[in-house]
Amino acid sequence: MSNQIYIGVDLGGTNIKVGLCDEQGTLLHTYEGPTSAENGAEFVIGRIAEYVKQIVEDSSYEWDQVAGIGAGLAGFMDIPEGFIKFSPNLQWRNVPAKKMLEELLGKTVKIDNDANVAALGEAWAGAGAGIPNVVCYTLGTGVGGGIIINGKIYQGSAGMAGELGHMSIVPDIEAIQCGCGQMGCLETVSSATGIVRMANEAVERGERTTLSLHEKIEAKHVFDAAKSGDEVSLRIVNRAAYYIGRSMAALAVVINPKRFIIGGGVSKAGEILFQPIRETFKKYTPETAAEGVEIVAATLGNDAGVVGAAGLNLR
Amino acid sequence: MSNQIYIGVDLGGTNIKVGLCDEQGTLLHTYEGPTSAENGAEFVIGRIAEYVKQIVEDSSYEWDQVAGIGAGLAGFMDIPEGFIKFSPNLQWRNVPAKKMLEELLGKTVKIDNDANVAALGEAWAGAGAGIPNVVCYTLGTGVGGGIIINGKIYQGSAGMAGELGHMSIVPDIEAIQCGCGQMGCLETVSSATGIVRMANEAVERGERTTLSLHEKIEAKHVFDAAKSGDEVSLRIVNRAAYYIGRSMAALAVVINPKRFIIGGGVSKAGEILFQPIRETFKKYTPETAAEGVEIVAATLGNDAGVVGAAGLNLR
Repeated sequence: MSNQIYIGVDLGGTNIKVGLCDEQGTLLHTYEGPTSAENGAEFVIGRIAEYVKQIVEDSSYEWDQVAGIGAGLAGFMDIPEGFIKFSPNLQWRNVPAKKMLEELLGKTVKIDNDANVAALGEAWAGAGAGIPNVVCYTLGTGVGGGIIINGKIYQGSAGMAGELGHMSIVPDIEAIQCGCGQMGCLETVSSATGIVRMANEAVERGERTTLSLHEKIEAKHVFDAAKSGDEVSLRIVNRAAYYIGRSMAALAVVINPKRFIIGGGVSKAGEILFQPIRETFKKYTPETAAEGVEIVAATLGNDAGVVGAAGLNLR
Repeated sequence: MSNQIYIGVDLGGTNIKVGLCDEQGTLLHTYEGPTSAENGAEFVIGRIAEYVKQIVEDSSYEWDQVAGIGAGLAGFMDIPEGFIKFSPNLQWRNVPAKKMLEELLGKTVKIDNDANVAALGEAWAGAGAGIPNVVCYTLGTGVGGGIIINGKIYQGSAGMAGELGHMSIVPDIEAIQCGCGQMGCLETVSSATGIVRMANEAVERGERTTLSLHEKIEAKHVFDAAKSGDEVSLRIVNRAAYYIGRSMAALAVVINPKRFIIGGGVSKAGEILFQPIRETFKKYTPETAAEGVEIVAATLGNDAGVVGAAGLNLR
């Protein structure tokens, strides 16, 4: 076989997931195992190298066909250098991950942050396939983002482009402080954490809601209650959706993408979340900038990370 | 002489300005004359062609050294095709300006909107020289914008990128409708028109302000009064600046430029405008995204248009 293959690594705090893609971004094999981050960076990087070699060995491809290896992880990094300054979930500081992996594997390795990599995966082979300019939101514990321009991750001057969760968008009068230190970040209202916070506050205020029946409220409870007609939950969901819609309206006249993609655990809520996002977007975007722009759900699910990481060397 | 030269046209409702630049973006000559838009598109386009030929004739360069011609104007257009759909200040509809000029001049012509072209001028040879990613605001009657990525105008999927005046940024509770039809656009508060509106409203409400001494309030009066300590004027200037600062804070985590450039008539107000913009930006931007980012005044003034138009073929 003469075709080239690409390998992507999704390095999480708990598991390492490795995927093997063809040149079209089709995910052919995956391999997953524990990160065991407590053993330190050198151990984990060695384990990644093993997994990468293993997945090729287990496939019908040869090592020579591997055209590039990419990895995505959460943290602050010097992306061109592949140097991890600090990864909160791995508790790594100053790890030259790219260089270490290249030495172990003898292949080019590229590293990027997980939200950018997931965006690239969706743009390459998911909900944004064939569209040059897309903006992706990942709604989970936080709100991640990635901007794809002409099929490539757009990094900005200091690698801070696409940090959509830290767009300060909530008006002062109702803003709270974000984990990043700023006031009013999108993440404070539109992440699972933000939704749960608003739910707990409503219960503490003694509002009439079925949410008070849960010992520990999760974002899913809020969406389920909203679907069953619980008004307090509906108001919380609409608020989370409203600010996503408003941030998209701003991006429509800045990035002017053809498609917005929403992934991450929270996006599984479906239409109860998407409909108010679309309504808000339409209301706050000039017609010429909203025309033909779609707001869609991500399609790769948890595979977006490995697919996008594999794509880092191709795109 | 073997050097190439570039010609830029700034097509306004009242005047046509033509400029001749060298390969570094240095403006060597300008030529200006009336648009006489009332004579129709064919006449005006013919006049532009005459001016372009004239400026080369009057210079020490030969026609053969002209490597490209660009033009900027206000209006809705198909930028790749150089087709003007509608220009409000020229009252043109469906004018294939690029094609008409190319036929008259026998050279490649590129056309773009005036805010993009001014941004390119500043990025090429003005306040953004040598910086790959910059965002420019033009504060005048409206609020224009242009985004330069890797030294080129970023157009977005439908040419709507960089329409910064139409970022909906004012909270619902205090938003008014913009000329574009949307609520809460930056242009409603941070343009000369917005500043004058807020001033008139304050006077009508009977607030104590020296602005009430003017028969017809202009933006300049508001800045002058603010500099003299008029509290109402100061509040208006701070509000205009606040929303520019907040829009920049959002752009810092989206475009993540190295430099923000502010031009246009309103920007001449100077530090009384720039200081609250910088303070607001700092307050609402995560430290890692604000670090090293500068907010500076445009340096080319009214020449930004011709310089940027000249650069359309080079960049």
